[in-house]
Amino acid sequence: MIVLFTDFGLLGPYTGQVKAVLARDAPGVPVIDLFADAPVQNPRAAAYLLAAHATWFPAGTVILAVIDPGVGGTRAAVAVLADGRWYVGPDNGLFEPVLRRAALAQVWEITGRPQNLSASFHGRDLFAPAAALIARGERPDWRERPVSRVRRPDWPDDLAEIVYIDHYGNAVTGLRAAALPLDARLAAGGRTIAHARTFSDVPPGTAFWYENSNGLVEIAVNLGRAEAALGLALGSAIIVES
Amino acid sequence: MIVLFTDFGLLGPYTGQVKAVLARDAPGVPVIDLFADAPVQNPRAAAYLLAAHATWFPAGTVILAVIDPGVGGTRAAVAVLADGRWYVGPDNGLFEPVLRRAALAQVWEITGRPQNLSASFHGRDLFAPAAALIARGERPDWRERPVSRVRRPDWPDDLAEIVYIDHYGNAVTGLRAAALPLDARLAAGGRTIAHARTFSDVPPGTAFWYENSNGLVEIAVNLGRAEAALGLALGSAIIVES
Amino acid sequence: MIVLFTDFGLLGPYTGQVKAVLARDAPGVPVIDLFADAPVQNPRAAAYLLAAHATWFPAGTVILAVIDPGVGGTRAAVAVLADGRWYVGPDNGLFEPVLRRAALAQVWEITGRPQNLSASFHGRDLFAPAAALIARGERPDWRERPVSRVRRPDWPDDLAEIVYIDHYGNAVTGLRAAALPLDARLAAGGRTIAHARTFSDVPPGTAFWYENSNGLVEIAVNLGRAEAALGLALGSAIIVES
Repeated sequence: MIVLFTDFGLLGPYTGQVKAVLARDAPGVPVIDLFADAPVQNPRAAAYLLAAHATWFPAGTVILAVIDPGVGGTRAAVAVLADGRWYVGPDNGLFEPVLRRAALAQVWEITGRPQNLSASFHGRDLFAPAAALIARGERPDWRERPVSRVRRPDWPDDLAEIVYIDHYGNAVTGLRAAALPLDARLAAGGRTIAHARTFSDVPPGTAFWYENSNGLVEIAVNLGRAEAALGLALGSAIIVES
Repeated sequence: MIVLFTDFGLLGPYTGQVKAVLARDAPGVPVIDLFADAPVQNPRAAAYLLAAHATWFPAGTVILAVIDPGVGGTRAAVAVLADGRWYVGPDNGLFEPVLRRAALAQVWEITGRPQNLSASFHGRDLFAPAAALIARGERPDWRERPVSRVRRPDWPDDLAEIVYIDHYGNAVTGLRAAALPLDARLAAGGRTIAHARTFSDVPPGTAFWYENSNGLVEIAVNLGRAEAALGLALGSAIIVES
Repeated sequence: MIVLFTDFGLLGPYTGQVKAVLARDAPGVPVIDLFADAPVQNPRAAAYLLAAHATWFPAGTVILAVIDPGVGGTRAAVAVLADGRWYVGPDNGLFEPVLRRAALAQVWEITGRPQNLSASFHGRDLFAPAAALIARGERPDWRERPVSRVRRPDWPDDLAEIVYIDHYGNAVTGLRAAALPLDARLAAGGRTIAHARTFSDVPPGTAFWYENSNGLVEIAVNLGRAEAALGLALGSAIIVES
């Protein structure tokens, strides 16, 4: 299975062209849209979102992850094998939390370049063909790269900010819930927010935080939109007050 | 074929994770996105939209329908077999118009629960695996439930309100067109609206109602956006003046 | 492969119902969403977007292209074979730049009509079944139509206006970059804009034009949204000042 994690959107041509490459180069392999609206041109926020969602997929999954504001510049193209899952994308920190949390990890720099490489769409021209090869059990032209060279040691273990606003207006943080006591209080949007297990455990209109279905701390309002009610946006800081 | 009818959106992780479960549990079965933007957390409006669209699909189709504001609470999980089509989702009225209009119907309560059931995403953890089993000709753990127990006898046969605003700004009602005479006039958004067969039958900028391609009364403006022109929104009331 | 180029959106029922028809009539053929947000009800702008993207796909591809404000009226339904690629859709100019640029082209009028043809959704009821037949190597009921009858000789070779705003706020024009010298300056949104190779070649916040990954002139702002920064919208005129 190939899983797409990008900031390409679904409506325009980008995701479709990537899928056309995958259909050509890895026919019959299921392709899943995980995120097409990861934080735009923000690999740091996207990295914590990716790490939380990737481990839900089984070993052998190939995750094509492209948030790539440096496309056409000097950043390397890499493939990561971490705890049995493959990741393909730009070397810009996007795989830092994955690597930090992995028991076993290896990294390769993808060195081959296709003849028709565009300056602005390596997702289609470089990363998708590489992901397709890996999904078929083959390997692109590459050389191993020391894991230490792609690390971002100054990044935190968890990111205390909003990294995603979902379709319901829920505000997802880059904090893993397992790291917080259930009586922790969060300060966000000028309010103090207590824990609840899930939506139906609080009255309509009440804000709460809970462990979402992917293990992240998420701020929500029962039958409401937390984003609007609390004035939260991508990048809003969260403070843990416990 | 498995058909998705949800309020999950397409961009974020929800629909993708559901499809990953279906690819794992029912490999090779085509999965169709029918609605990912059914009325958010509004099973009543969604129910009339679902009933109008479901009958376009052939017998044997499995419709995974999840608008589930009560997730994690006490509402039951059900499977419905109505006129040869399967429906899987929460017991919150979402299947009321389907049941009311069906010649033949049976209902089961899904009783099994997976080990890793999240509190907030039964679409992925409970309903998708059940739908996949049914699509493969197998059955989840369940027990038959009297149809009367899942009915909402106080709901109307048709819903005289806007249940969907489409991509073009057309306003879809919960009224079946077959129930209205063609000379009926609708009062909506402070205006009186007459019938036309289709867009090209009225001058540009003119509002009209017509039977849309799924049998519902829809309010539109030729080469315009009815939503904006008439001030219509989800839940706006419609009055039939014939 | 069947490629979808429409203004249907992805969220609502339209694209899903088209895909259900394709899954029924051409099972196993990969279906790619190229654009679901081509310029709404604007076949002229859409035509230049289509021509630029279609040639990226290999010969044998079937492109189902439906921007169809005249649905239900008198416009013909056509199939075009141009340089080895098939196009199926309404005869409203949508295929004009494709035909003008093709070395070899033939056109047929699709004459058959299904029993259950809706007045407003020929994409589902007429064009999708025809595209599925062609993808399977069969042919719908049709008769050859002189290419001259579907041409729009008064349309320009390139369209000097914004034909698409992408997910990042980049503004795509209907101008092929190969037709412009690299020192050309564009006047757009009251500004004069110079060429750059790609995003990382200009400072953050700088507007530039470049040849995008599909060969079109695109106006962008490094790490910004050109649409908002320059006040551009669909239909905004571009002047080439070189």
